[in-house]
Amino acid sequence: MFREKIPDDWFDKIVGDLPAVLIDHAHLERKAATGALNLEKYRSTQKFVRELNEIAIEELQHFELVLDLLKKRGVEFRFTPQSPWITGLMRAVRHGVHEQVIDNLIVCSLIEGRSCEKFQILRDRLPGIDDELAAFYGSLVESEGNHYATYWLMACEVDRDEAHARLDFYLDLEAELMRQKHDMPMLH
Amino acid sequence: MFREKIPDDWFDKIVGDLPAVLIDHAHLERKAATGALNLEKYRSTQKFVRELNEIAIEELQHFELVLDLLKKRGVEFRFTPQSPWITGLMRAVRHGVHEQVIDNLIVCSLIEGRSCEKFQILRDRLPGIDDELAAFYGSLVESEGNHYATYWLMACEVDRDEAHARLDFYLDLEAELMRQKHDMPMLH
Repeated sequence: MFREKIPDDWFDKIVGDLPAVLIDHAHLERKAATGALNLEKYRSTQKFVRELNEIAIEELQHFELVLDLLKKRGVEFRFTPQSPWITGLMRAVRHGVHEQVIDNLIVCSLIEGRSCEKFQILRDRLPGIDDELAAFYGSLVESEGNHYATYWLMACEVDRDEAHARLDFYLDLEAELMRQKHDMPMLH
Repeated sequence: MFREKIPDDWFDKIVGDLPAVLIDHAHLERKAATGALNLEKYRSTQKFVRELNEIAIEELQHFELVLDLLKKRGVEFRFTPQSPWITGLMRAVRHGVHEQVIDNLIVCSLIEGRSCEKFQILRDRLPGIDDELAAFYGSLVESEGNHYATYWLMACEVDRDEAHARLDFYLDLEAELMRQKHDMPMLH
C-alpha cells in the first residue's frame, strides 16, 4: 500500500539509541489511545464506540508494557520531540466534522500500518542485539496490523468514496514525509 | 468533606429514567478516562503517569461494562447533554500550567468522590427496583473511592498549599452547583 519504502538506514538509527526510541514508543502508545478516544466523540463514529474503546485499552496496556521496560532498564520516562512525520500527517486533517472523521481515521490507519511494518523489522533484525526488545516488538505486530485494518474499514463504512480519495491523497503525502529523513531516535 | 448533601429527590430522578442515566454514565466513564490521559501531558504529573494510566484503563473498562448493560437492555448509546455540575467545575479551572494541573486534579477528585457517594446510594436503594444495577453500582464504589483519593494525593504532592487552598474554593463552588438542581436524568 505505502508508496515509499522505509529507508535502509532507519534500523541503524533506531539501534543507535534504543532507550530514546523506547521513550518515544511510550508516547506513541499514549497518543494512539488518545486518538482512538477522540474519535468516539463524533456522531458518525458512535457505532464504532466499542471497537474504538478496545483499541484505546490495548494502546494503554502497551503503554504500560513500555513503561515496564523503561523501568527495568533504568530509563527515565520524559518528554520527547514530536515526530515530523506524524505532525505532517496531522496537519493535513481538514476542517469540518465529516472531513475530520475521515481524515483522522485514515491518519490513525497509516500510523498503525507503518508501526506494524517497523515492528516487523525490529522483530526480525533485533535478535542478537536486543532479544528482549525483538520479542517485545514481535508481540505487538498483530495488534498494530489489526488496528490499521479496523481504522481503514471504519473510514470506508463512514464514506467509501471519500475514504478512497483521501487515502490516495494521504499516501502521496506520507511518501513525501517519509523522504524527509531526520536524525531523531524515534520510531516515525 | 462535601459541604452540601446530595438532594433527597436525586434518587427519585435517577429511578425515573434509568436507561438515560446509564447512557449518561457511559459518557461519564469515557470522559473520566480522557481526563486521566489529559493529566499525563504535564511535566509535574509525569511521575504519576503509571497511576493515571491505570485509572484511564479502569475507566475504559467500566465504560465497556456500561455499554454491555446498554446492549443487554436494548438501549441505544447516544449523545447526551453536558452535566451543568461538571461544566461548572470545569469552567473554574484557571489558566496557566501549574494552575491547570492543580485544578484539574481537584476537579477529577471531586467528580470521583461524588460518584462514589452516589453509587453507594444506588447500591443501597436500587435493590428490589433494579437488582442488576444495584449490584453493578456496588461493584464500582471502591474504584471511585480510590480514584478520588489518588487524585487528591497527587494534587497535594504537586503543591500541598495550593491544593488545600483550591480544595477550599472548589468545595464552596461544588456546594453552590449542587444547590442548582436540574431535571435531567444524569448522575451529576
